[in-house]
Amino acid sequence: MTLNEMGQLAQQASDVLALIKSKDKNNVLVAISTALKENTSKIVAANRLDIEAAKNAGISNALLDRLLIDAPRLAAIIVDLHGIATLADPVGEEFDSKLLENGLKLCKRRVPIGVIGVIYEARPNVTIDIAALCLKTGNACILRGGKETINTNLILVDIIQQALIHCNLPKTCVQYIENTDRSLIAELLKMDQFVDMIIPRGNSGLQQFCKENSTIPVIIGGVGICHLYVHTTADLDKALAIIENAKVQRPSVCNALDTLLVDECIAATFLNKLAKHLIPLGVTLIADKKAKQYLQYPAIDAQLGDFDKEWLSLNLGVKVISGLNEALVHIKKHSTQHSDGILTNDLSIANQFIDHVNSAAVYVNASTRFTDGSQFGLGAEVAVSTQKLHARGPMGLQELTTYKWIGIGDHLIRN
Amino acid sequence: MTLNEMGQLAQQASDVLALIKSKDKNNVLVAISTALKENTSKIVAANRLDIEAAKNAGISNALLDRLLIDAPRLAAIIVDLHGIATLADPVGEEFDSKLLENGLKLCKRRVPIGVIGVIYEARPNVTIDIAALCLKTGNACILRGGKETINTNLILVDIIQQALIHCNLPKTCVQYIENTDRSLIAELLKMDQFVDMIIPRGNSGLQQFCKENSTIPVIIGGVGICHLYVHTTADLDKALAIIENAKVQRPSVCNALDTLLVDECIAATFLNKLAKHLIPLGVTLIADKKAKQYLQYPAIDAQLGDFDKEWLSLNLGVKVISGLNEALVHIKKHSTQHSDGILTNDLSIANQFIDHVNSAAVYVNASTRFTDGSQFGLGAEVAVSTQKLHARGPMGLQELTTYKWIGIGDHLIRN
Repeated sequence: MTLNEMGQLAQQASDVLALIKSKDKNNVLVAISTALKENTSKIVAANRLDIEAAKNAGISNALLDRLLIDAPRLAAIIVDLHGIATLADPVGEEFDSKLLENGLKLCKRRVPIGVIGVIYEARPNVTIDIAALCLKTGNACILRGGKETINTNLILVDIIQQALIHCNLPKTCVQYIENTDRSLIAELLKMDQFVDMIIPRGNSGLQQFCKENSTIPVIIGGVGICHLYVHTTADLDKALAIIENAKVQRPSVCNALDTLLVDECIAATFLNKLAKHLIPLGVTLIADKKAKQYLQYPAIDAQLGDFDKEWLSLNLGVKVISGLNEALVHIKKHSTQHSDGILTNDLSIANQFIDHVNSAAVYVNASTRFTDGSQFGLGAEVAVSTQKLHARGPMGLQELTTYKWIGIGDHLIRN
Repeated sequence: MTLNEMGQLAQQASDVLALIKSKDKNNVLVAISTALKENTSKIVAANRLDIEAAKNAGISNALLDRLLIDAPRLAAIIVDLHGIATLADPVGEEFDSKLLENGLKLCKRRVPIGVIGVIYEARPNVTIDIAALCLKTGNACILRGGKETINTNLILVDIIQQALIHCNLPKTCVQYIENTDRSLIAELLKMDQFVDMIIPRGNSGLQQFCKENSTIPVIIGGVGICHLYVHTTADLDKALAIIENAKVQRPSVCNALDTLLVDECIAATFLNKLAKHLIPLGVTLIADKKAKQYLQYPAIDAQLGDFDKEWLSLNLGVKVISGLNEALVHIKKHSTQHSDGILTNDLSIANQFIDHVNSAAVYVNASTRFTDGSQFGLGAEVAVSTQKLHARGPMGLQELTTYKWIGIGDHLIRN
């Protein structure tokens, strides 16, 4: 099948999905979860092929771990699927209703976006996750996973499609681009006739490629150079706990801390406290010149460009600054507008920070790790947007919908 | 100045605009309106140059009318400016506030988008309109008008910039691309480093060009192939009034009616009633084969592609169909998802129409002409979006904003 044919079929499937009841959409999710459970051994066997191939290709252990689906991980995915089924369905909700002076009874009704194209790498759980979130919101999807997980993804999509057929829905509600040639991505990005939104889940190279080549709206996101600024008035012990959480809990994700900015007047005390606490946890400090002067612990000299790196590791950039203004200037220059926070006990300083920092999520005395759909109470997350249109920050079910205006008149003409 | 320098300056200006008070933004609008009034004769003189040049270039009377700014039109623009100043400022509003179980106090705060690029043709009033709406919402803008209005636009922008300086704001809050070479548009569309949103206000050729060449999110819109479907149960007299309003009131705009679909069982009566009523008003019927058979009045045979035309004139496509299903199929195939409506007295049919037609605005027993920011009670309109992301249908002040999440914790870490 050509990509164009897939697009056409996806659009037809989306017309069907847009009109089915919440109950029926939830039934599909349950049917998928049942089928996944029944096919556990098949899925694990397919995944083993991917893992073997990855090992032979000399892929790192960290990446191998991301590729892996074993029985316990699959069980967790199935639990998540049931969770999505229990979430409220945003589709059909009517809001902003009003009776206008001109006599028009007007409201907005939430409707699916249509067809979503998702391009992602590694993690095969994304296949199920995205398919489920799209189905829940009445959207068809065209998926394009990485070649490292092709065996796993093909069996997962086959199981999803069988479940769709079982529920009397077109299997083309969820389609997968099997050809792993990169040219197919470029082709997908031009299919604005059929695809309404592109979500690239991957590194900044992929994001940039989509931005430059897509004629379809792209949700840029998931790349976070995140900052915490330790203000003079911060409670240093509690600051330490937040910094540890932001850096150490899960360093490989986009909401992990990358750069710590420290006020100079507390640098001598705090930096050594920090080093003493974090180094035993495996953290490597990448310190600017001033920070190095204060540090009595080992640290690597920050090189040009180090403050523009999303570390995705236990590295932590550290920079000593003169106060709020320098913090704001640094963040403006280096942040990817994902998640940035301040640790302070000064309300006025906190408010200035909130006003001036223009990131998807701005924190006061909290870890950057909170930027997440489920932490934000959205129940699910399809992506974390770092662009400004449509949605910003964690995107849940509602962000997979749009609206149409409905105007009802009693034979109404415009004056 | 290079376009890149303009972009940089716009971004700096947007940082200033994002943080000023509503009062100060309104003061700028009043200052602009005062300056416009004081410079009426200068503006009219500059406009006369454009009109002269257009006449010499043999431009149509309809287009000449769109170019014209005389004293009464300028006075109307000034009234509109004061209107924008009195609208509520969406920026700073906090919404979706919640205290999460994890302890995080979370809300969304509405903030400006940043820098808006607007590409438009003809109408010089757009220059003032867009500048005012952007200033009101704290956005900087880069404007690119058509070459036919260069003299008028340059003086208007100069007046706006003088007013900005007078109010102690950077004049680069509103910038204008003076070079009318089309290559500048292509360059603007790649400036994603500085520009956050592109609004092309023009024909489908311009929209397509922007879609294909922009690395910045584009608001596609303003092109409407609009339908009304006259169902068997429609009140035929009232239907006539609505059709007249939708087609005749202002045929050159995007929410004007293009195609009328008529149920076959009422075709014999209704089509002749329609022709008798509309032909004296200057309407030309472009009828499909079946409609021609029923019509006892003159009509032009519809050619291949006629139902894919946004007429922007007193032409009206007419097609006889077998019922709701054929109407839905026709609309799905030919609508630009701008504004489509049904005229019916059958509630069940009305609801099916609303459910199935996926346009920005869907009407029951009302004119398509209502699709408009001010008719929808938004107070203003920057564009009518026919795409699905960010905003759909008329875009007012709120649609020129985005939000950031603000998370406040009492030294909170993620579990």
